[in-house]
Amino acid sequence: MSRSTGYTAAGVDIDAANNTKAAIRAAVESTYNAQVLAGMGAFGGLYDAAAIAAAEHPVLVASTDGVGTKTMVAAQMDDWQGIGQDLVNHCINDILVQGAEPLFFLDYIAAAKLDERRVVAVVEGIAAACRAAGCALLGGETAEMPGVYRDRQLDVAGTIVGAVERTRVVDGTAIGAGDAIVALPSTGLHTNGYSLARSVLDGLDWHVGRDDLGGVSIGAALLAIHRSYLQELRRMRADRIAIHGLAHITGGGVVENLPRVLPPGLGATIGRGSWSEPPIFGLIQHRGAIEDAEMFRVFNMGLGFLVVVAHEDADRIPGGSIVGSITADHNEVRIVPGGTA
Amino acid sequence: MSRSTGYTAAGVDIDAANNTKAAIRAAVESTYNAQVLAGMGAFGGLYDAAAIAAAEHPVLVASTDGVGTKTMVAAQMDDWQGIGQDLVNHCINDILVQGAEPLFFLDYIAAAKLDERRVVAVVEGIAAACRAAGCALLGGETAEMPGVYRDRQLDVAGTIVGAVERTRVVDGTAIGAGDAIVALPSTGLHTNGYSLARSVLDGLDWHVGRDDLGGVSIGAALLAIHRSYLQELRRMRADRIAIHGLAHITGGGVVENLPRVLPPGLGATIGRGSWSEPPIFGLIQHRGAIEDAEMFRVFNMGLGFLVVVAHEDADRIPGGSIVGSITADHNEVRIVPGGTA
Repeated sequence: MSRSTGYTAAGVDIDAANNTKAAIRAAVESTYNAQVLAGMGAFGGLYDAAAIAAAEHPVLVASTDGVGTKTMVAAQMDDWQGIGQDLVNHCINDILVQGAEPLFFLDYIAAAKLDERRVVAVVEGIAAACRAAGCALLGGETAEMPGVYRDRQLDVAGTIVGAVERTRVVDGTAIGAGDAIVALPSTGLHTNGYSLARSVLDGLDWHVGRDDLGGVSIGAALLAIHRSYLQELRRMRADRIAIHGLAHITGGGVVENLPRVLPPGLGATIGRGSWSEPPIFGLIQHRGAIEDAEMFRVFNMGLGFLVVVAHEDADRIPGGSIVGSITADHNEVRIVPGGTA
Repeated sequence: MSRSTGYTAAGVDIDAANNTKAAIRAAVESTYNAQVLAGMGAFGGLYDAAAIAAAEHPVLVASTDGVGTKTMVAAQMDDWQGIGQDLVNHCINDILVQGAEPLFFLDYIAAAKLDERRVVAVVEGIAAACRAAGCALLGGETAEMPGVYRDRQLDVAGTIVGAVERTRVVDGTAIGAGDAIVALPSTGLHTNGYSLARSVLDGLDWHVGRDDLGGVSIGAALLAIHRSYLQELRRMRADRIAIHGLAHITGGGVVENLPRVLPPGLGATIGRGSWSEPPIFGLIQHRGAIEDAEMFRVFNMGLGFLVVVAHEDADRIPGGSIVGSITADHNEVRIVPGGTA
């Protein structure tokens, strides 16, 4: 059908949207595995659940999230390669904390006007992260909403669905006083705290390499890709490490996210200095004259993902740093100077 | 922890966001059924899949969608009651076309600044539609993204996951020439064509009842809630009607959506006048001087959901109107004057 002048004039070009959809098809199909029943359906995506059904008592775990205003940094740097991986990895980590393995993912990308190059870059990033996790990109939606989005901006959200055997759900109830807290490092802000970071770093040159960032530019440091901890979790399961609790450190920082899995009455003491803090946090704190408590509430501060295990298992976590311990002395998360473990 | 001045100053108020989350909890929990493992996990939502696993060969069906710029109409009318139902019902219909029953839903709501009253209204609408479908609202995310969204606007997207027995997947392969096309009526635009509709109707009074809309205002007609066809589909299954194909008429209209389920070589002839067109479409077409072909490409025109069945089953569809038939004479969707069935 020929170009629809009426609808184009009102701000939505259906033909351009269709072209973008065709261009991203290859990326999407690169994630397909034997479970994806491609071609069976035209509207929703179909995923063969026979393997899940073979489990003793399967539980589905699902989570929806976005990447916040990290998209504004991507727009400012005109670098959209990482946003899709940020989105998928964030969602993977959110179901990983329950012990689930990812099955499939769906994305939503919206803007005032869809820029095909941007959308393709974002979807390719989503597909790359899905492939790395063995997760199918089962569906997605792109929307042009002039009047809702600001010009040259874009939002992206995603939903992940995974599965776990009911007896293997990790829910923190196994956590006890004296357990060790082991941190898996973050690459930087991951997907939280960008409004504050952008505000504080506004006016600096984001493109030039800086000594205080180890030669990296502010833009590159801010766009460091949100890490997935899937491989580490798989390794721990293979090594039969008894995992007592897991926490993905996102908005609210360690002080709000770790308590979500702590049994009533328990707290945590974390020793600052016992892990490596990416230098971007120091730059933000110094330039913004932000107090420590605020930093730890907004940012992950280098603590990407926490694993709570018995003290004797603490040095068996691949790539982990022992950063603190569980305590019955108080029921909050306290950050104290120096190592405590 | 006390209010975070730094983060608030940068445009994101974590405490306000937490208050909104508490306010919507009641709505969310009203959708819980025995499958929701509430309290087991703190990050992702957990859904007991034992019942699904009991099926012969279960297939999961998932879809993500939004409601387009219908949110701008809601903003203009300051009426957010329907948007959540629009979102859920749209998604239900998208997996219904494959024969799937909804299991659970997750939502994403984002704005420059979250207005608690709006968010609560939207989530209550989502929860109401979920309850009506027996679908659990398993999770969701709210995001404040100043700089990405325009002031006083809001976007909402959702993801539905359903299940179907593999042998009962509806994929259109059973469709043959001579089959009847039965339409289930739409309530209006549902969730498509709002950019064009708003543009054309701009400048008119949207609040006053109009004779040419049967006494309804433009605002109310535009906000008519997207219908779910779940009950009709359940009834057809209970009546053991052999469903050959199903199409949810969304963006692209009947001319683009029906072909998505037609086997190669087949087309459809639909007789205009054989169903009732909501008067809002006539008003838009007249005022915008829009050609018929364009109207049928942008709007559902009253054809909310199409059911393709053998001719002898056509009058067994509850609430349906026979609007056309499948043909081997051509392989497109043709709209012709008068009834053809």
